[in-house]
Amino acid sequence: MPLQRIDLLAGRPTGERQSIADAVHRALVETCGVPEQDRFQIVAEHDRRSFLFAPEYLGIRHESPVFIQVTLNAGRTLEQKVSLYRRLAELLGAAGVPPNDVLVNLVEVTKETWSFGDGMAQYAPATPS
Amino acid sequence: MPLQRIDLLAGRPTGERQSIADAVHRALVETCGVPEQDRFQIVAEHDRRSFLFAPEYLGIRHESPVFIQVTLNAGRTLEQKVSLYRRLAELLGAAGVPPNDVLVNLVEVTKETWSFGDGMAQYAPATPS
Amino acid sequence: MPLQRIDLLAGRPTGERQSIADAVHRALVETCGVPEQDRFQIVAEHDRRSFLFAPEYLGIRHESPVFIQVTLNAGRTLEQKVSLYRRLAELLGAAGVPPNDVLVNLVEVTKETWSFGDGMAQYAPATPS
Repeated sequence: MPLQRIDLLAGRPTGERQSIADAVHRALVETCGVPEQDRFQIVAEHDRRSFLFAPEYLGIRHESPVFIQVTLNAGRTLEQKVSLYRRLAELLGAAGVPPNDVLVNLVEVTKETWSFGDGMAQYAPATPS
Repeated sequence: MPLQRIDLLAGRPTGERQSIADAVHRALVETCGVPEQDRFQIVAEHDRRSFLFAPEYLGIRHESPVFIQVTLNAGRTLEQKVSLYRRLAELLGAAGVPPNDVLVNLVEVTKETWSFGDGMAQYAPATPS
Repeated sequence: MPLQRIDLLAGRPTGERQSIADAVHRALVETCGVPEQDRFQIVAEHDRRSFLFAPEYLGIRHESPVFIQVTLNAGRTLEQKVSLYRRLAELLGAAGVPPNDVLVNLVEVTKETWSFGDGMAQYAPATPS
């Protein structure tokens, strides 16, 4: 995987939500070597009372932020991460989210923490049989 | 803990959802030494537009995947993890989820990252008083 | 950030939910040096069938638990974490959640895993330009 969790305010049109999800996956494919078919995304909408944020942090204003939390294997370089953030901002911009509202966090895990089905640890080195 | 997050498509009968949750906890108890009473599960249902996945990855087809993301203490061996994945596939199979749709990720943390209530770090070694 | 995920049973009054979110952020500010404006919270409500927990663990009873999962930078000391758990229990108590129902988990990440907007890794040391 990565496992991509995308949290945003309710009320965006369905098409826009789909474009946002497409953009997040596209950025991961382009900058982090994620395979095209390795796509697992959970998009959750929240009302304003359940989605709380300050109007500005680090000089960046937030109006309708999109939080993108991606669990993925450790090993991406700082350069790749920075490329990912930049590409996310570009592609989400085209999907209707201004760069100031693109918030990202990565949770880095090891390869043996994944199973993609069939009860196996497909990414683990030397999986015991 | 572990903290168990289970994400799936809406529409399964309530009883099946309960069986899925029971199966996930049972697999953790049996393979990872999780105490029976150490059960904390959040099950979230999503509609098809909010739960996005490719139809096939690594040769495994996904039709109605169940994503199981478990935050738990580091220290389980690769053997335990593989046993967990295998047992999850078996027990979820009995709960109506075919093995190809059982997807798992573990987020490993340290013991001092938990509080089980009363404002204390119950698992931390040598907690300052 | 931290990114704060707060999961609880549906049915609490809106004002109480707001007080809970305020309390969680306040505790992070006071004990972990989180800036006041560094506030990003997702509160999710669940019905009883989707929010599963044993009635007691480690001698602590759980009736209507609030799960607080915070992703934050590594580097907080054990003392800070213990102070955080204690302060969360105190402040959530004032917000209507008894200490036995305050459950916490921290997911520790590195500084380069964050982007706060504008496609940049604001916290990364020596971000490549």
